[in-house]
Amino acid sequence: MIKVGIIGVGTVGTSVAQILKDNADVISARAGQDIEVKSGVVKNLNKDRGLDIVITDNVDDVLNDSEIDIVVELMGGVEEAFGVVKKALKSGKAVVTANKALLAYHRYELQDIAGTIAFEYEAAVAGGIPIITALRDGLSANHIESIVGIMNGTCNYMMTKMANEGVAYDDILQEAQDLGYAEADPSFDVGGFDAAHKLLILASIAYGIDAKPEDILIEGIQDVSSEDVAFAKEFGYVIKLLTIAKKDGSEVELRVHACLIKQDEMIAKIDGVMNAISVVGDKVGETLYYGPGAGGDATASAVVANIIDIARSGKSTPMLGFDKPMEGTLTLKPSAEIKSKYYLRINVSDKTGVLAKITKIFEIHNISVETMLQKSTSDISANLLISTHIAKESNIQDMISELEKLDFVNSKPVMIRIV
Amino acid sequence: MIKVGIIGVGTVGTSVAQILKDNADVISARAGQDIEVKSGVVKNLNKDRGLDIVITDNVDDVLNDSEIDIVVELMGGVEEAFGVVKKALKSGKAVVTANKALLAYHRYELQDIAGTIAFEYEAAVAGGIPIITALRDGLSANHIESIVGIMNGTCNYMMTKMANEGVAYDDILQEAQDLGYAEADPSFDVGGFDAAHKLLILASIAYGIDAKPEDILIEGIQDVSSEDVAFAKEFGYVIKLLTIAKKDGSEVELRVHACLIKQDEMIAKIDGVMNAISVVGDKVGETLYYGPGAGGDATASAVVANIIDIARSGKSTPMLGFDKPMEGTLTLKPSAEIKSKYYLRINVSDKTGVLAKITKIFEIHNISVETMLQKSTSDISANLLISTHIAKESNIQDMISELEKLDFVNSKPVMIRIV
Repeated sequence: MIKVGIIGVGTVGTSVAQILKDNADVISARAGQDIEVKSGVVKNLNKDRGLDIVITDNVDDVLNDSEIDIVVELMGGVEEAFGVVKKALKSGKAVVTANKALLAYHRYELQDIAGTIAFEYEAAVAGGIPIITALRDGLSANHIESIVGIMNGTCNYMMTKMANEGVAYDDILQEAQDLGYAEADPSFDVGGFDAAHKLLILASIAYGIDAKPEDILIEGIQDVSSEDVAFAKEFGYVIKLLTIAKKDGSEVELRVHACLIKQDEMIAKIDGVMNAISVVGDKVGETLYYGPGAGGDATASAVVANIIDIARSGKSTPMLGFDKPMEGTLTLKPSAEIKSKYYLRINVSDKTGVLAKITKIFEIHNISVETMLQKSTSDISANLLISTHIAKESNIQDMISELEKLDFVNSKPVMIRIV
Repeated sequence: MIKVGIIGVGTVGTSVAQILKDNADVISARAGQDIEVKSGVVKNLNKDRGLDIVITDNVDDVLNDSEIDIVVELMGGVEEAFGVVKKALKSGKAVVTANKALLAYHRYELQDIAGTIAFEYEAAVAGGIPIITALRDGLSANHIESIVGIMNGTCNYMMTKMANEGVAYDDILQEAQDLGYAEADPSFDVGGFDAAHKLLILASIAYGIDAKPEDILIEGIQDVSSEDVAFAKEFGYVIKLLTIAKKDGSEVELRVHACLIKQDEMIAKIDGVMNAISVVGDKVGETLYYGPGAGGDATASAVVANIIDIARSGKSTPMLGFDKPMEGTLTLKPSAEIKSKYYLRINVSDKTGVLAKITKIFEIHNISVETMLQKSTSDISANLLISTHIAKESNIQDMISELEKLDFVNSKPVMIRIV
């Protein structure tokens, strides 16, 4: 009999306890033994969670309980959770967590501290999709060339609605908040930070690369307008918030931002709140993983899978899937060095000579235009819709700064990268 | 240092050896030790495979080599391979196989024989997609409600071409053969048998259910015409060869056949030679896995992942993922009891009273028509296109037998199930 203590019995924690009970038949057969939640730690002792487990508000009641084999950390946050998890590992307890922020900051220290003690975190990335298992175990024979993911359901729901129904950003954000898909303060989701945390975890498994959120390019979807979505559609593209990890020689790019994607790519077909991750390996080619990225039961499904795995094999795969440097010299590519194709929408005063001046500025910054389309927006202004050939991020940024200052450019040019 | 012996050094075997060499940096970091192919067994010693390993034509040179830790079985076939794998396991060697036919017939005996010795087979189902890992480890917290897969690339390539380009079955089969996607004798693929082997393996992991190919409903795509594909498209459907495992109370349906699927389902969006498997769990909901189902490197990627996993953890997860009965009383549902919606195309002589007679026969067999459409095919004949409400397989089969005998029915009615 394996005994589990849950630290943080909210939506996911309650689902974990419930699944272990509801599905005890298959879980016991698969784990080779029975698994039981012994106790749970909460902040508010007065709230009834409908579970027949010991409830306490003292973390040490779980951490110091010698009967508990596995600690499930679902308290969230970074430093306090880090302290709790360290203490659990040091007392020899296996740990399962769904805490992506904790891992975005402390995964390498945690791998060292865990050593041969099992530490699993399937639920931390893309909820119910077993992407950690797939990447760490299923694709382990490959050099990973790229990981392109839709890993924030809120953003994908919003972008899908904007594409399919032409709804404006603010309206759809309100709707997502009403439906409970977006928080009252939505910036963690729509700003790309949630997706970035997940990306950093996958990049460690794939490349062994160490980076923190502040080291990488993170943009959100706040500046994507329904105009851009409509233009994209007209040219056979959809716009999505993507997380991208890409190996380029001895460098790895890590970035989160809105992208134009060709409609016939698999990743472009992922609609609504669903998540998907496309992984390209040098030997296997492209594989893709699709499913629910959030929700109590889906997330808990991943937590319980980790518990079963630990009960079954007590295995001590290194947490990040490797225990010596993998590809020696891989380093993080500075954001300014990223190369991409770009979509630009520049709203200009419709006057003679403007086009010549704009194209001159493109030339100065060494940016080559692939297509250009002018659409009037009023009698006196027009949108220039431009797609570029491959260009360098720093050149694009410099050019946008210059364009922005011109008196015939009416607002900050919109830039969306094309993949 | 882990030493591997490969039995059957064909396309996949050569790729396995090559990947272990090409990707030794990441493989060694992930496995925690170096892995080397020591020897390979072939039928024809004279063919140069460009590998620097010992080549022999005697299986016992590998099986009796005490230095070899892992035997990779890639010889194919059923009974001879069974003998070889048994001998390897009994001598304490771990085994990795890509042999789906072996597993379709002997997986339960092999699980017993393997005991705590590692026996892995990721490559046996859907090539490079880590679906075994996903189902056995990633979704282990769930009762599996259904598995719906596109697991034969040849059939999916053909159905995609028929749908997108209106090509006739015979022409596209010829093209698939020219491209090397289909064998000279294509019946193993187009007849659904290859997909059925894979389905049986997944069904064991999901349900613990034991069945052999001859126990389940297996049909191919040979009778799907470009007419049916075009009609399906007109009504918002695509036709695919699907493998279906579905829990219904205490019974499990296992079947392989062509299906009409709504165009907006994820599984309907899988085009060309690619494979995909949609798995619905009671807690996680739907997850889907997409990638290359065949090819030397993609298949070898899965074989090498198993080798790494064994080297890393030497883990002894039971081969099928459970070691006591899972859901007690689950039994295989007889094919005749399957319930589905059906599409029927009945070519009839265009005479007065025919429609009344046909609809009367539907009524006698307790089959309720959802939609009916008549399209003339000549001055004297017409196609009746019918979709039914949920009906019982045995009733449909009986009705088709009766319809076939009528003098105004010009050919055997075409029946395709709707999912």
